Amino acid sequence: MKRLCIALCATAGLFAALPASAQFQKPEDAIKYRKAAFTVMANHFGRIGAMVNNKAPFDAKAAAENAELLTHLSVLPAAGFIAGTDKGETRAKPEIWTEADKFKGGMNKMGEELNKLNAAAKTGDLAQLKTAFGAAAQTCKACHDNYRKE
Amino acid sequence: MKRLCIALCATAGLFAALPASAQFQKPEDAIKYRKAAFTVMANHFGRIGAMVNNKAPFDAKAAAENAELLTHLSVLPAAGFIAGTDKGETRAKPEIWTEADKFKGGMNKMGEELNKLNAAAKTGDLAQLKTAFGAAAQTCKACHDNYRKE
Repeated sequence: MKRLCIALCATAGLFAALPASAQFQKPEDAIKYRKAAFTVMANHFGRIGAMVNNKAPFDAKAAAENAELLTHLSVLPAAGFIAGTDKGETRAKPEIWTEADKFKGGMNKMGEELNKLNAAAKTGDLAQLKTAFGAAAQTCKACHDNYRKE
Repeated sequence: MKRLCIALCATAGLFAALPASAQFQKPEDAIKYRKAAFTVMANHFGRIGAMVNNKAPFDAKAAAENAELLTHLSVLPAAGFIAGTDKGETRAKPEIWTEADKFKGGMNKMGEELNKLNAAAKTGDLAQLKTAFGAAAQTCKACHDNYRKE
């Protein structure tokens, strides 16, 4: 619970310090930014995925480094979902804004699960990493299913 | 000097733990990854830039958060410059690979200057932030001038 609180406070703090409206000159900049953040996240999440799915050797140090990085990245994309950015080079569905609280809840859940993944990775125990990875992957899938066009 | 050593060791450690050849299934994945990492970096560097150029109010806490994030991001793009990725959706010049040591030196210099920016941001002093920002921006420009097509 303490870890969760710290993560939520950190996320809230970042949003408070960096109002989304001031971060992007044009709507397409916001789209490019959030897509880039997700691209980097997917790569580093995938590196852990390869380990837990026996497609790469388990390297506890590398897993921990990737998981730690993911906690820093996880707070970034939300800022890119500014109003009016469901058009252009994006697969974002309008429900992101019509169900804003639910979408934010999904993003927060992702952050929580990535913090748990980070804690699991730090133990160096592959079984714990697998469990945490599966839970985190579910949070990715849930938002993709609900809020991303095919 | 100690800070510099820590930064260099961290960078070297990341590369050692995560061999570039194993991180990307296809060359275009490496290109997409490094471009995404640079996109996120440019955004957060730009937020500090707006403050030091009087285009946004100076917010010491936000500057420090952005600078801290940049130190985590600065080590990422290098892994995407795998051999053969000067073709496709990229402005990367072939000199990146024919002058590999010089290019790596430029990337390391960027990391060093972003670590100095982080230290400057932590002081909360705008004058120090301006100086460090200018030096870091020079390392961006140097590599863009030498290794990025117009």
